[in-house]
Amino acid sequence: VDAWTGSPTVGEAGELTALAAILPRLPASSLRLLGPGDDAAVIAAPDGRYVVTSDSMVEGPDFLRAWSSPYDLGWKLAAVNLADVAAMGARPTALVVALAVPRDLPVAALEGIADGLREACEALAPGCGVEGGDLAESPVVTAVATAFGDLEGRDPVRRSGARIGDIVATTGALGWATQGWRWLERGARLEPFSLPEGADVGEATRVRARSQLLAQLRPSPKLGHAIAAAVAGATSMLDISDGLALDAGRIAAASGVRIDFGDGAVGVLDAAEDHAFLTTFPPGVTLPDGFSPIGSVVEGSGVSLHGEPLETLGWDPFRA
Amino acid sequence: VDAWTGSPTVGEAGELTALAAILPRLPASSLRLLGPGDDAAVIAAPDGRYVVTSDSMVEGPDFLRAWSSPYDLGWKLAAVNLADVAAMGARPTALVVALAVPRDLPVAALEGIADGLREACEALAPGCGVEGGDLAESPVVTAVATAFGDLEGRDPVRRSGARIGDIVATTGALGWATQGWRWLERGARLEPFSLPEGADVGEATRVRARSQLLAQLRPSPKLGHAIAAAVAGATSMLDISDGLALDAGRIAAASGVRIDFGDGAVGVLDAAEDHAFLTTFPPGVTLPDGFSPIGSVVEGSGVSLHGEPLETLGWDPFRA
Repeated sequence: VDAWTGSPTVGEAGELTALAAILPRLPASSLRLLGPGDDAAVIAAPDGRYVVTSDSMVEGPDFLRAWSSPYDLGWKLAAVNLADVAAMGARPTALVVALAVPRDLPVAALEGIADGLREACEALAPGCGVEGGDLAESPVVTAVATAFGDLEGRDPVRRSGARIGDIVATTGALGWATQGWRWLERGARLEPFSLPEGADVGEATRVRARSQLLAQLRPSPKLGHAIAAAVAGATSMLDISDGLALDAGRIAAASGVRIDFGDGAVGVLDAAEDHAFLTTFPPGVTLPDGFSPIGSVVEGSGVSLHGEPLETLGWDPFRA
Repeated sequence: VDAWTGSPTVGEAGELTALAAILPRLPASSLRLLGPGDDAAVIAAPDGRYVVTSDSMVEGPDFLRAWSSPYDLGWKLAAVNLADVAAMGARPTALVVALAVPRDLPVAALEGIADGLREACEALAPGCGVEGGDLAESPVVTAVATAFGDLEGRDPVRRSGARIGDIVATTGALGWATQGWRWLERGARLEPFSLPEGADVGEATRVRARSQLLAQLRPSPKLGHAIAAAVAGATSMLDISDGLALDAGRIAAASGVRIDFGDGAVGVLDAAEDHAFLTTFPPGVTLPDGFSPIGSVVEGSGVSLHGEPLETLGWDPFRA
């Protein structure tokens, strides 16, 4: 993607100029008491507690400059972290972002990352801002976000609360991010949008392919659904990142139960990176908007489909 | 340093085994409500606010495996972040740590990093714990910490509060970390302790050299001094990381004043990475234990020594 090349570079501009280009592009949290610029920031914790999570994106294993623009990187970094906050039933409030980049990276690429962070916050979690961070040098582009949330008086929704008899439900269009990955592998690109040479597809496929690329490169988890699930009494929840069956296995293991999938899970058991929410609800609860039932919590361990045990091999970044 | 080589490696052991080796070594925060293991952690904020900062250490620009052990890396990562929290006048309460490492890194090196994090927390900020993080793959060892603190009802001590007539004071033995760096450049090592071949030095020099290496590789900022300064009414404060004169220039710029140094600053104006605290106090205040006066706040801008302006060129990681 072109936006990774150009001048001036960070090395030519220097740290202060680079920071001066980034900081005005970052949104302020509605809970900001003291923003970037001092040794540390100060954020309000109206609930008296705060939720904290951290997720990284490293060039190579986690993203490729050929596939993702700087904007895409900033967007996805925010989105995956905000989804982890929401998966606890908390409202995302702030991010801190550490970037480590090569000296020959253009300042414009840092601006693109900042724009992606800002627009993801505005689109997914209005009121959430970037309250600080760090800029360092590294041979590979490395982006680490730490995200914060407010529980608004609710208990956190953990992985360990699923009970036998609960309904298993998900949000979102599962499998789209995986399809987007496959398009990228075949040579499709998001911006400018192009499908692989020789891909003889109609308009409907083009439109769907673009949505699938967006699901992979700029995921838009429905954070409000996760918060609604917490309000509705969800017994357990996580955001689906490594695969539906694998992540379900985590709830099963933490809760000491089995997750048994029905027809709704067929074909999407391996779906990864959708950052949809996998949730269990007590029987009889009216599912909040956006949730579809895909199974039930039963006695046993692990994950099954119509009662047949599934093997859920873990995705391991160090062995992939 | 030997501790960076060996087996099993992270790639051989896999992520789950690596995490299982790290997690039990990490200390719990006394404010932990929900620790690592879910999508996010939950930390108490007794003050209703929390202080947040983030600092990174990347192999190459920020540390060398030949000079620093994994333990040193973990210790320094914690220390520099905790110092930033304390420089706001806050008590450090928790860390979140994102590591990105090559597949061929030994699991024992991750354990060393965890041990350094734990022992730094125990030594410098008892009650502070590691409440989560991330483990990713990268060709270079990259460690990012985000640190949290509690203001205990006090106002944060900013850089912008210095007023004309204030006393300028510092804690700590300035210049020791810089001397440690020079020893390392000349071939000295901390563990096992050795001085450069041909360095014909007496016992007193050996003892001092070891302390200087410790100041560089395992800094021990006196966080209690910073909190005492806040209680005593410090008008501004920061932790000295990039150099005494340079960091003083930051207080001067933020406060719209000049910092004029006296004899106490001679010879240590360039001292960097000591993570001592540079603080201004109202005239007439009894300086808390550990603080020595080194100058005064006067009308003007920038930094001076006995009234003679100093040029403070910024240290820039991208131009170093």
